Amino acid sequence: MIDLHYAPTPNGWKISIMLEELGLPYQVIPVNIRAGEQFRPEFLAISPNNRIPAIVDHEPADGQGPLSVFETGAILIYLADKTGRFLPKETRARSQVTQWLMWQMSGLGPMLGQHGHFALYAAEKIPYAIDRYRDEAARLYGVLDRQLGKTGAYVAGDYSIADIACFPWSMTHKAQGFTLDDYPNVRRWYAEVRARPQVQAGLAIGKFVKEPFDEEARRNMFGARAKEMAGRK
Amino acid sequence: MIDLHYAPTPNGWKISIMLEELGLPYQVIPVNIRAGEQFRPEFLAISPNNRIPAIVDHEPADGQGPLSVFETGAILIYLADKTGRFLPKETRARSQVTQWLMWQMSGLGPMLGQHGHFALYAAEKIPYAIDRYRDEAARLYGVLDRQLGKTGAYVAGDYSIADIACFPWSMTHKAQGFTLDDYPNVRRWYAEVRARPQVQAGLAIGKFVKEPFDEEARRNMFGARAKEMAGRK
Repeated sequence: MIDLHYAPTPNGWKISIMLEELGLPYQVIPVNIRAGEQFRPEFLAISPNNRIPAIVDHEPADGQGPLSVFETGAILIYLADKTGRFLPKETRARSQVTQWLMWQMSGLGPMLGQHGHFALYAAEKIPYAIDRYRDEAARLYGVLDRQLGKTGAYVAGDYSIADIACFPWSMTHKAQGFTLDDYPNVRRWYAEVRARPQVQAGLAIGKFVKEPFDEEARRNMFGARAKEMAGRK
Repeated sequence: MIDLHYAPTPNGWKISIMLEELGLPYQVIPVNIRAGEQFRPEFLAISPNNRIPAIVDHEPADGQGPLSVFETGAILIYLADKTGRFLPKETRARSQVTQWLMWQMSGLGPMLGQHGHFALYAAEKIPYAIDRYRDEAARLYGVLDRQLGKTGAYVAGDYSIADIACFPWSMTHKAQGFTLDDYPNVRRWYAEVRARPQVQAGLAIGKFVKEPFDEEARRNMFGARAKEMAGRK
């Protein structure tokens, strides 16, 4: 059994989709990030960066007791290697997947995250910051579009953890004011990935009631709470 | 022989340090990012995200001709697996390294990058953005400090690609207005990593003359050039 410490966000969906793709038995443990549950000591013990998602594998390959993993990129690699799926073993194909997974982790995720923050969530509307991240997001969609045009299939060739990492973030395109009409290869790929029953099942996980996005949520999600905790050390 | 397409930046140093640690034969191919060389078609063919560094391994394990790798996290994993060093094979230890490598790729690197942009480089000084990223950088230094306090050694236990990824970005602390006195475990680790001759050798690579940081450099590095290229498609 795998515990999935989870909230329904793009990063959370990466792992619910992966677990659905793999058909592994898992249980969802909701983490209410708007209410600040990511700062609880028992959560920090498995996710020291106070971010969801994280997993605990109660049946790891080494048989040495529960194994916890945080950071979605590391969880995807861990689960892929555990099952031998969605991450080839062969040097070249494996590196292709790892490269695009890293591109998602270091670029697409963080930069769409910043654009979302400044364009949609920040109380203050700051044109410089909105433009900076909109341009960077557009650049990244362009990079993805060219890559998908080159493979004619999935991000790194065959369907892989690179797709599972990129897809949930690309779901933010509409809310963030992008249209996939500008990126025809992304549009084609997006429709194919979205049509997978396992992806649909992963997205349906944990549609639990969200806390209101109020001042308390803002404090828990945008750093003020983490700052207080750091000052308290 | 490995080609290292390189500029002396925190991301570039990760790989020059790794290659020095491994003692692999390599040649440095400077990419003048201020002059926009990252947009040349021959560079984009190996680094489709128009970012340095990238490598081309002319003697890959599969013997199938030159193998190119972009994204520092993917390059580090590739080189570690090629040589069997700095990334354990055993499930649990390997995942520890991968988790902290991903933390660097998705958090420490991008967020120190954003703080550097708004605090040091942006023509406009925007208090909201500077505060946002200073708080996030401080949070991340706190996470790293607690982890290093826990291991009492390196980021993921033994010295690994997680350290090689984290160290060059932590070198920005002074320029970005942080003091490691606030993070005693980071200070201890930082001194140990910096004292390694291989790290010194990696940092010395490519101290070639920098182009001036002028309007042309700003255009090439902060998105305007990429935007023009995207519009031209």
